[in-house]
Amino acid sequence: MSNFQTWMQSVQHQMETALADVLPDAALAPARLHAAMRYAVLGGGKRVRPLLVHAAGELAGASRQRLDRIGCAVELIHAYSLVHDDLPCMDDDVLRRGKPTVHVEYDEATALLVGDALQTLAFQVLADTPLADSPGTQLGMLTLLAQASGSRGMAGGQAIDLAAVGQQLSREELEFMHIHKTGALIRASVLLGAQAGEPLPAGELERLDHYAKLVGLLFQVVDDILDTEADTATLGKTAGKDADNDKPTYVSLLGLGEAKQLAEDMLAEARETLAPMGDRSARLEALADYIVHRAF
Amino acid sequence: MSNFQTWMQSVQHQMETALADVLPDAALAPARLHAAMRYAVLGGGKRVRPLLVHAAGELAGASRQRLDRIGCAVELIHAYSLVHDDLPCMDDDVLRRGKPTVHVEYDEATALLVGDALQTLAFQVLADTPLADSPGTQLGMLTLLAQASGSRGMAGGQAIDLAAVGQQLSREELEFMHIHKTGALIRASVLLGAQAGEPLPAGELERLDHYAKLVGLLFQVVDDILDTEADTATLGKTAGKDADNDKPTYVSLLGLGEAKQLAEDMLAEARETLAPMGDRSARLEALADYIVHRAF
Repeated sequence: MSNFQTWMQSVQHQMETALADVLPDAALAPARLHAAMRYAVLGGGKRVRPLLVHAAGELAGASRQRLDRIGCAVELIHAYSLVHDDLPCMDDDVLRRGKPTVHVEYDEATALLVGDALQTLAFQVLADTPLADSPGTQLGMLTLLAQASGSRGMAGGQAIDLAAVGQQLSREELEFMHIHKTGALIRASVLLGAQAGEPLPAGELERLDHYAKLVGLLFQVVDDILDTEADTATLGKTAGKDADNDKPTYVSLLGLGEAKQLAEDMLAEARETLAPMGDRSARLEALADYIVHRAF
Repeated sequence: MSNFQTWMQSVQHQMETALADVLPDAALAPARLHAAMRYAVLGGGKRVRPLLVHAAGELAGASRQRLDRIGCAVELIHAYSLVHDDLPCMDDDVLRRGKPTVHVEYDEATALLVGDALQTLAFQVLADTPLADSPGTQLGMLTLLAQASGSRGMAGGQAIDLAAVGQQLSREELEFMHIHKTGALIRASVLLGAQAGEPLPAGELERLDHYAKLVGLLFQVVDDILDTEADTATLGKTAGKDADNDKPTYVSLLGLGEAKQLAEDMLAEARETLAPMGDRSARLEALADYIVHRAF
């Protein structure tokens, strides 16, 4: 196993423990809600966002304890968005990470509250323990997470996505949607990790930010490719949903070959962006590579 | 008009401006989501929680600017909870503050995202501007709001409420539900207001906390009485819902007469609790009185 794979598995394992730790015990009242919150978050997921938090945070010399906690915050936001996206009034999906979705396993009202409470917990986890060298920096981190998640970020991207069903989008419009829907939280993951450590030179912060934007889009391009190519068992969620729902994707817009080329081009740009930071950015580079090649 | 009424109207007016200001402009993309967020929050509501923020904050010498912003945060949390509660999978209500509910006026998916984005905005508003004498205190305020809103607070109370439909609850169980569902955010409103000002002596903080707990429960007892006695036009939401939904209430448990007596007794206790603070707590006292006598 490569050094990168060992590191990735160790972070993933550590994140599982950290998430299990910040989620309320299923024995605490209201027990059904807490059990459903744990069901929604634990035991699945590649933890891509926490991996980005850790890779960027290590580059800035942040402690693993801080990065675990920040990783929890972004993963809780991501998990809440999946639970709500899967609801009947949104994507109406029955399968997620190889298991029945929360509203199928429990019920719709519980799934609604699970999403709500996971979002709250994300902000609690980011506020209730020192996670930066000054409380002022930490307030900035909370602001960043909120901006990335709210109506001008992830939730806004969802709204654009809803409005786009059955529409013919231009590449610019598709990009605008994904920058919000997926890109904003991925970008925040990188920046939050970096902010937990020593201040980086402005030039490096800009490079990290550019890398983070590329990876955010890259992630979505690859997701669209996987939705076309992979089967449901491999994905752990229903394959071919986007085409079935008449949703615009990079594949429907560019065709499969050109979408793959776009992914390779963006990966090359991400590598170039990191290059001046040398070995310190090796894990961020390996993560971008992993995101692109996770399935093809 | 009494001094208190003048003050109340001035704070309500000011809060309307402050909320209109923190909500994204309806012209910004995604426009439909932003329009729906404004529809959900503006032009209605008694703003009880912001009034408590202001009354407690003035007692601690906090500036109106800070209190407006904290008032926005708690009101946004309250508004998000109403939008989600009204959804078909929860209370399935069509009327709120005299207007069609968000999912009726827009659609279910938009209402889901409106609630999600309002919650995010609440934390953003509480993080992105200095609101306390130190950033460390402000991090504590964010933690307090999250605890009051999440699975061990308001959202947890909703889950207990769901589980209680059709059940015979004891008074202790009913109280446990309301302490979470309504009480936690009301209590947080008082404490957040106070934390925005000069540190209060420990004895006064304890009194404020006891007052806040009483007012939280008081609010629910009165709500139950109103749900029985008032008509839909007066309430601006569907009357008699709790009985129709076979939900346990203070009225169904104690009878109307005893529920009213309980409200008066708790009001008297709130007054006694504030008494040693003299005139400085006059507005908190008047607010408790307003909450009890707003309709009977």
